[in-house]
Amino acid sequence: MTTNLPLSDELIAEANARETAALEEDYAALGRQLDRRGIDIDAIKGRVAGFSVAVPSWGAGRGGTRFAKFPIPGEPTTIHEKLEDCAVINQLSRVTPRVSPHFPWDKVSDYAGLRQEAASLGLGFDAVNSNTFQDQKDQAHSYVTGSLSSTIAETRAQAVEHNIECIEIGKQLGSTDLTVWVGDGTNFPGQQDLGRSLDRYLEAAAQVYAALPDDWRMLLEHKMFEPAFYSTVISDWGSSILAAQELGPKAKCLVDLGHHAPNVNIEQIVARLHRFGKLGGFHFNDSKYGDDDLDSGSINPHQLFLVFNELVEAELHPRDGFNPSYMIDQSHNVTDPIESMLSSAETIAACFAKALLVDREALHAAQEGNDTMMAFQALRRAYNVDVAPILAMARMEAGGAIDMLSVYRQSKWRERKAQERKPVGLGAGIV
Amino acid sequence: MTTNLPLSDELIAEANARETAALEEDYAALGRQLDRRGIDIDAIKGRVAGFSVAVPSWGAGRGGTRFAKFPIPGEPTTIHEKLEDCAVINQLSRVTPRVSPHFPWDKVSDYAGLRQEAASLGLGFDAVNSNTFQDQKDQAHSYVTGSLSSTIAETRAQAVEHNIECIEIGKQLGSTDLTVWVGDGTNFPGQQDLGRSLDRYLEAAAQVYAALPDDWRMLLEHKMFEPAFYSTVISDWGSSILAAQELGPKAKCLVDLGHHAPNVNIEQIVARLHRFGKLGGFHFNDSKYGDDDLDSGSINPHQLFLVFNELVEAELHPRDGFNPSYMIDQSHNVTDPIESMLSSAETIAACFAKALLVDREALHAAQEGNDTMMAFQALRRAYNVDVAPILAMARMEAGGAIDMLSVYRQSKWRERKAQERKPVGLGAGIV
Amino acid sequence: MTTNLPLSDELIAEANARETAALEEDYAALGRQLDRRGIDIDAIKGRVAGFSVAVPSWGAGRGGTRFAKFPIPGEPTTIHEKLEDCAVINQLSRVTPRVSPHFPWDKVSDYAGLRQEAASLGLGFDAVNSNTFQDQKDQAHSYVTGSLSSTIAETRAQAVEHNIECIEIGKQLGSTDLTVWVGDGTNFPGQQDLGRSLDRYLEAAAQVYAALPDDWRMLLEHKMFEPAFYSTVISDWGSSILAAQELGPKAKCLVDLGHHAPNVNIEQIVARLHRFGKLGGFHFNDSKYGDDDLDSGSINPHQLFLVFNELVEAELHPRDGFNPSYMIDQSHNVTDPIESMLSSAETIAACFAKALLVDREALHAAQEGNDTMMAFQALRRAYNVDVAPILAMARMEAGGAIDMLSVYRQSKWRERKAQERKPVGLGAGIV
Amino acid sequence: MTTNLPLSDELIAEANARETAALEEDYAALGRQLDRRGIDIDAIKGRVAGFSVAVPSWGAGRGGTRFAKFPIPGEPTTIHEKLEDCAVINQLSRVTPRVSPHFPWDKVSDYAGLRQEAASLGLGFDAVNSNTFQDQKDQAHSYVTGSLSSTIAETRAQAVEHNIECIEIGKQLGSTDLTVWVGDGTNFPGQQDLGRSLDRYLEAAAQVYAALPDDWRMLLEHKMFEPAFYSTVISDWGSSILAAQELGPKAKCLVDLGHHAPNVNIEQIVARLHRFGKLGGFHFNDSKYGDDDLDSGSINPHQLFLVFNELVEAELHPRDGFNPSYMIDQSHNVTDPIESMLSSAETIAACFAKALLVDREALHAAQEGNDTMMAFQALRRAYNVDVAPILAMARMEAGGAIDMLSVYRQSKWRERKAQERKPVGLGAGIV
Repeated sequence: MTTNLPLSDELIAEANARETAALEEDYAALGRQLDRRGIDIDAIKGRVAGFSVAVPSWGAGRGGTRFAKFPIPGEPTTIHEKLEDCAVINQLSRVTPRVSPHFPWDKVSDYAGLRQEAASLGLGFDAVNSNTFQDQKDQAHSYVTGSLSSTIAETRAQAVEHNIECIEIGKQLGSTDLTVWVGDGTNFPGQQDLGRSLDRYLEAAAQVYAALPDDWRMLLEHKMFEPAFYSTVISDWGSSILAAQELGPKAKCLVDLGHHAPNVNIEQIVARLHRFGKLGGFHFNDSKYGDDDLDSGSINPHQLFLVFNELVEAELHPRDGFNPSYMIDQSHNVTDPIESMLSSAETIAACFAKALLVDREALHAAQEGNDTMMAFQALRRAYNVDVAPILAMARMEAGGAIDMLSVYRQSKWRERKAQERKPVGLGAGIV
Repeated sequence: MTTNLPLSDELIAEANARETAALEEDYAALGRQLDRRGIDIDAIKGRVAGFSVAVPSWGAGRGGTRFAKFPIPGEPTTIHEKLEDCAVINQLSRVTPRVSPHFPWDKVSDYAGLRQEAASLGLGFDAVNSNTFQDQKDQAHSYVTGSLSSTIAETRAQAVEHNIECIEIGKQLGSTDLTVWVGDGTNFPGQQDLGRSLDRYLEAAAQVYAALPDDWRMLLEHKMFEPAFYSTVISDWGSSILAAQELGPKAKCLVDLGHHAPNVNIEQIVARLHRFGKLGGFHFNDSKYGDDDLDSGSINPHQLFLVFNELVEAELHPRDGFNPSYMIDQSHNVTDPIESMLSSAETIAACFAKALLVDREALHAAQEGNDTMMAFQALRRAYNVDVAPILAMARMEAGGAIDMLSVYRQSKWRERKAQERKPVGLGAGIV
Repeated sequence: MTTNLPLSDELIAEANARETAALEEDYAALGRQLDRRGIDIDAIKGRVAGFSVAVPSWGAGRGGTRFAKFPIPGEPTTIHEKLEDCAVINQLSRVTPRVSPHFPWDKVSDYAGLRQEAASLGLGFDAVNSNTFQDQKDQAHSYVTGSLSSTIAETRAQAVEHNIECIEIGKQLGSTDLTVWVGDGTNFPGQQDLGRSLDRYLEAAAQVYAALPDDWRMLLEHKMFEPAFYSTVISDWGSSILAAQELGPKAKCLVDLGHHAPNVNIEQIVARLHRFGKLGGFHFNDSKYGDDDLDSGSINPHQLFLVFNELVEAELHPRDGFNPSYMIDQSHNVTDPIESMLSSAETIAACFAKALLVDREALHAAQEGNDTMMAFQALRRAYNVDVAPILAMARMEAGGAIDMLSVYRQSKWRERKAQERKPVGLGAGIV
Repeated sequence: MTTNLPLSDELIAEANARETAALEEDYAALGRQLDRRGIDIDAIKGRVAGFSVAVPSWGAGRGGTRFAKFPIPGEPTTIHEKLEDCAVINQLSRVTPRVSPHFPWDKVSDYAGLRQEAASLGLGFDAVNSNTFQDQKDQAHSYVTGSLSSTIAETRAQAVEHNIECIEIGKQLGSTDLTVWVGDGTNFPGQQDLGRSLDRYLEAAAQVYAALPDDWRMLLEHKMFEPAFYSTVISDWGSSILAAQELGPKAKCLVDLGHHAPNVNIEQIVARLHRFGKLGGFHFNDSKYGDDDLDSGSINPHQLFLVFNELVEAELHPRDGFNPSYMIDQSHNVTDPIESMLSSAETIAACFAKALLVDREALHAAQEGNDTMMAFQALRRAYNVDVAPILAMARMEAGGAIDMLSVYRQSKWRERKAQERKPVGLGAGIV
């Protein structure tokens, strides 16, 4: 199929032409430095070129809080417009070739057509996401009492049915993962029985699980709080992995970086899920307080590096298998979503690249010998490397832009879309 | 003025009649128990009868999160309907005689008329609240860049003007406090300079301060995060009190129980604000994770008691004065707001009553003598008392209901309003 | 065997005589109140009389921090003196008939003799606790690299052997539980591989497990941090339950109330462990910041009540069995440990009593009907009851003291021991 | 005065000789890259060469927790040995020319001699630290009830006197700062009155303040918790700055990076203290959970960068002056303290260097224009730079080692000291 990318290739090429000499110089200098450490920069670049992360369709729109949402002109409001924006991100970054859709938000009448439309933009589809945390206009039963864990059998049945519908849509879109996040929980002690709520969740989730094709996975996403503020039915990785165990081998756990208690060691959770065969994937974002859904690595890039350090280690020691899915999941409340996802995708790829730079032989020897300082230094020396030249070189070679934000701004994409697209009304943001 | 309360007095009286004997028995038994401790139950009841807490007009509607809001039939949508519901709360509880309005949400054309309308329902007005955290349809400048701290002079001017307008409205309503909470802050490191943002805030806030009548106070409400997730311009009590110092003697600090970092000792913050002459008032609610806006005392009633312990202590040792304003500020996402505020008002009054029961002579002696166990026991013995009979007796004597929730349900208020009032649409909740 | 309790029975009887009339009056009044709610106070008293909680031998001494320890005159320094103090606690409270020993701290040459000595004081032994978090003088291998998870095979073997030795001692003492807490973890990213550390832990723990008698349990105690400040090998309930699953049916999880991340819903963890058949027991204490080891219920008594609400619910719905062990585990840094344990044991029993008072029929009906307010009120009404008369009556009838702290102080126990026991040296604070 | 540094200059020179070519290549390449951004690498190197941070005398020894301390052979036990180790750190790093002493731990009979001894090792003295959080053998009054805030007048007087003695010692050592951290606080609600405790603290602190020479500062160090676990008298920056305001212009606030509530924005606290004229200095370390006292930047290097970003900004906009003192304050529980301080000092200097690399013109323009993404990128681009060549070049030119850890290990310093110094006993863990 011929793809028809949204931005002009000339624009990118011309911009790159102005940056190439400097990039080559920086790449060569870094190559010599890494060579002294026994690292082949081209091999790292090759691994980076093979890396990708999905973007969420809903992330293409401006996000908000319960207090307000401040829309921007040119914001997409349909799945078609969102795909276009995602194509811009991938055209510039060459690292985000898949889009994760959310239903019923992204419902269309013709999914085969939607898949073609995406393909013509150079995009495929990632995990499908169900939505049982808010009511839709035409809905028979409200989710006010929860969804998969509701005490009301009809509500549970409706939620199960919706998830199965998502699987059906996903099949047509080429997805092989269903991500299930439910907001079910309570705001008061006593509101529901904590044990029986989980019983109901597991019983309903098993019905969804039963509808999974053989090559699909069901990714359970836990979250500590919000929208429920006293208890949440799948609140932590412990609840998530026990639920996944009960459901069966196709059920795995998805880690959203912002869904944990304060101070928790997230990289250890990743290691635990891998150790017990249940690491399914990630929703990348960053946070300082709660589920802030900030840009990946904007607050704590070192933590993101440590997560990738576990992932590289897991790949080397796959135990019962290693195949996590990677997706950005952010709320872009104060930036142009395209810019935030360009920047975030680069940060994520950079953390992957840095994790590849770790001298694992030295690390393992230091660990084995209890040489704490040198074990730490093995990580720190890799973290300190400025991998921008590696990422930019891989991107340029794949057709992307060396300086993505600059090219994006030169393209006047948003300004043009502000002329074409219908404006979004005021209101509270829902992410 | 003759008041015209929304519920039938007979309904209340008949229900009370069925409960009076039991109440009198419990009250007498508790009275004997307290008498053995040297406490006069009638004196406590008298203090409780003199206690009150304001309710927020916006709290009368169902709240929600950025994910969803689930409206209930019969929910109020205008200030007139909200006043009616607040009148029900006060008629049953006799402890919430004032309503705190929020502008522009509660704007009307005739404020003198609104004041009369409230008075006829047995209500007055408490602090007026300005709103510069979301855009209104007809607004010249967006608050997307912040309000009092925005880099844009016109935006700051608009925010100042709105606050002054609130003061003007408040004068007509009989208020004497302006509560200022701004959502201003950033989502990214570097987004704004942390020092200069505060400079701008202080300069603009000083213009609001200058418009305060002599007998008014400006209550600064701090909040750690949300809607801003990296930094907030007035994020903690330290920022709040330093701002209040710069503004002048009429500026005080307002403590919302859910606006603090995890684990923080809130009762000590109360003591500090009192120590330095800046304790202005409270927004009561409870929380487990962030600004959850749960029902007061539903999660940690002991903390609420400890706050009131400081308040009773402060009243005994007023230093530079003691006159805090008390208000409920909650988001009722899963309950009937009237029931939540009835229950919350009772919990708040209960904590006040328990704090009055502390044997302060014993407490102070134990503190002075470093008898830690007995100092703790002095508080704990008061906390353990079931003060329900005292509250119920005070309520009944003032015309309220002994069993408020039961009478409210018997009244079928919500069901009747569901017939009369226009329904609320779906959407994300804004609290 | 004749027991020889440390305090004079006359002292207790005389003190009780002065309090009995008031107690009977309060008990009768509460009985009438509960009767109106359909609750038989004597039945509750009977359940309370059957309740008990173990005390830790080490808790009888003054605790401290890395900064300092402030000893008190008369503090016990040997297991014999500690048993004596524990006997005082049980004689007064009649709710702490078992002591949990810690090895090698409590090592003696004759365990049969120690068991007799305890029995003569009215005490038995609870779970034995191993110690592999600090080095002992005569130790072959340091635990500086960890214990069960150390990279050094000899160190792991030594830790396994010590745990097996604890089981052997426990058999002689009549214990049937081994509590295993290890401080193993890291202070630096990279210090150890997070996956392989757990592999080593599990392999070593399996050797301990293999040595368990058939009727014993191995209680795994997780802790988020301290003494390790970056990662801990068994850091949370998720790690704990997965380890317990791998080890086998005799491995269960022990919940220490202070070992969790901030804001975590501990009662839900209890419900989860019960739901998945792995709830083993508790270390009761309270905390505001970290593992503060404060007196049970002193900071958040409502949370302790909610934990007991889960336990009462679990007993009614035992699923795969319900048999948790209860123990106090506190650090008494600023109080007389006997007084703290008297007060704590009463608080724990009070939370149990309150949980028994919950109208479960009403609660379950409200939950099933999504009547959130009434579900909450079902808990809250029970929580608000002052159960002191029930506890005191049960205690008096069992021979304990109505006013435990008062009788303890009258006994001059500590002052007498200060004459008899050798003083403790200054604790060296470690900063 | 001729200095007599502990390590052989030849060892350093020879090691550097092997690394110089590579360093020069990296430095040149980075220079060209920065030059393209309009930054003069030599100017940055010059600023780095002028930067320094003090080390704590107590940090030269192995740290521990209340559970255990694991000493290492060759650990220093006297101030003389500690000075030697600090001299090694400075000889290799050339960035730590001052030592901060702690009394009574570092008491000697001849302070003029101690100052000479330090000078001969190339060292001076930084802030003096008083210790009123643990009892000393010969002490008249115990600090069990607190120190400056104790209810006991004699205890307060003793604490005041000790602080004044520290000033006297400091004068002889050439210090001009007194750092005051008190552990005073409570473990139980009610243990002390929260207001009157602060009154006593302020009254006593004013007596210390009165003894300050004109050119001295009194640095108040706040801490949220530990050793007190319910309340702490100077628990947060708000308490600290209000206390400093009351004491007078020579009183400033000291920020220890590990002494805050979870999630708090520390860089904003720095900005606030600067804004209000009270930023006195820092205790650098890192933490994940509480006051973990981990190596600076080992957990969250980005946060440390953001702190230095505020400091560079503050230097450019000094308002009422900018003169903070910088000190490392860490507990080296699992590493050789010399190695940890070498690594930490480099990390701190690196964060300073990165903050200097921020394009402030671009940053300020983006802030002014509300171009959030570009403001963020201005910081992020600087943070991503690997500044190791700048630091190493500055170090080498000053006589330090390019690869500090490697040279230190080659020197066999610790092994030699293990032969010479008397061993440290096992630390008694306090649980």
